[in-house]
Amino acid sequence: MAAAAPVRVYGPPFSSAVSRVLACLLEKDVPFQLQPVNMAKGEHKKPDYLKIQPFGQVPAFQDESITLFESRAISRYVCEKYSTKGNKGLYGTNPLEKASIDQWLEGEGQNFNPPSSVLVFQLAFAPRMKIKQDESLIKQNKAKLAKVLDVYEKRLGESRYLAGEEFTLADLSHIPNTHYLVNVCERDELFASRENVERWWGEISSRESWRKVVDMQKSPPRG
Amino acid sequence: MAAAAPVRVYGPPFSSAVSRVLACLLEKDVPFQLQPVNMAKGEHKKPDYLKIQPFGQVPAFQDESITLFESRAISRYVCEKYSTKGNKGLYGTNPLEKASIDQWLEGEGQNFNPPSSVLVFQLAFAPRMKIKQDESLIKQNKAKLAKVLDVYEKRLGESRYLAGEEFTLADLSHIPNTHYLVNVCERDELFASRENVERWWGEISSRESWRKVVDMQKSPPRG
Repeated sequence: MAAAAPVRVYGPPFSSAVSRVLACLLEKDVPFQLQPVNMAKGEHKKPDYLKIQPFGQVPAFQDESITLFESRAISRYVCEKYSTKGNKGLYGTNPLEKASIDQWLEGEGQNFNPPSSVLVFQLAFAPRMKIKQDESLIKQNKAKLAKVLDVYEKRLGESRYLAGEEFTLADLSHIPNTHYLVNVCERDELFASRENVERWWGEISSRESWRKVVDMQKSPPRG
Repeated sequence: MAAAAPVRVYGPPFSSAVSRVLACLLEKDVPFQLQPVNMAKGEHKKPDYLKIQPFGQVPAFQDESITLFESRAISRYVCEKYSTKGNKGLYGTNPLEKASIDQWLEGEGQNFNPPSSVLVFQLAFAPRMKIKQDESLIKQNKAKLAKVLDVYEKRLGESRYLAGEEFTLADLSHIPNTHYLVNVCERDELFASRENVERWWGEISSRESWRKVVDMQKSPPRG
């Protein structure tokens, strides 16, 4: 394994989905190479890229002969393939732990991600792209996210992390969008007003893996 | 295992998410007991139910000491726990197969499910609930779904099923919403106009597991 080529991640680190995969690789201590995809120039819609990501989204991923898309599927694969490396409990160490992680990871994908992605786009990206913000969409999704965070507040009063007492993929998957909402969008009160959520966010956002991703988001693309 | 209590599924079979889990259990030949949850009476928002499904959604699931929510997480758990029963390839038989299934299953959850769920609600449920249909939402989500189906059309020209040559959880997860769109909502042309999608839908919808779920959807709830 020592001499194997590093895995490749296609896409810019500012993308929430790309940064989810990067944080996972850093937790797992798996060397990777970042392949720039210039989305402003539409590179994610070009035929060569569509061969590995048919929906024309980021990230795409390559490891030896396999290519994959969907950040949560890539993260699961990384945890399974590199089970003995880095953070060994990131995707659990037995079937019951894994089932609990999967349920909160799916909960993130189905309940947390839809409203938080809309808010991140509307509040962080639309202004930079000179797109007019949709106030009613913002209000609607803020209310949806608040309901999800009410569930988390209760859960995080019962256990330190979402899937139990250890930091897992389920927690990690929330970091990229929350980072934008807390630090860029000034929607901090959604998180800060909930004691357990605030404690949890403090813990998960200060992980070394995520600090490195934030540095990558600040740096010009490598390549 | 022979004498073990059957697993329990909480929720009505007409729910797409509940029927996803039922189809999975039938494919895996895992005996189950259906626990009615009367959503019209708000039983999914009552404290006892919220203990096992904190978001107040269906389904919830119980097997021995574990309770789970999120239909795709429950399905993954069923495939892992009962790996030697029923359809043994449903979630793959090696890590590469599993990674491919996970990517298309996540693709379903992130790309196919959002527009198809809106359409199922607007076209099948809203009329029954005497809720006015939102024509602009229908048009918008029909266009989104068409783009997803264009990707599937290409993919299903390269392989018999989404994740490869075998029927897997990735295909199964599409059945519940597609069933409503094709049979109830008269949005059949979205599927029928795409040759490979149409061939695929014919194959996956005629599986014995799904025929049984359709029968359960027609029957009055057991209790």
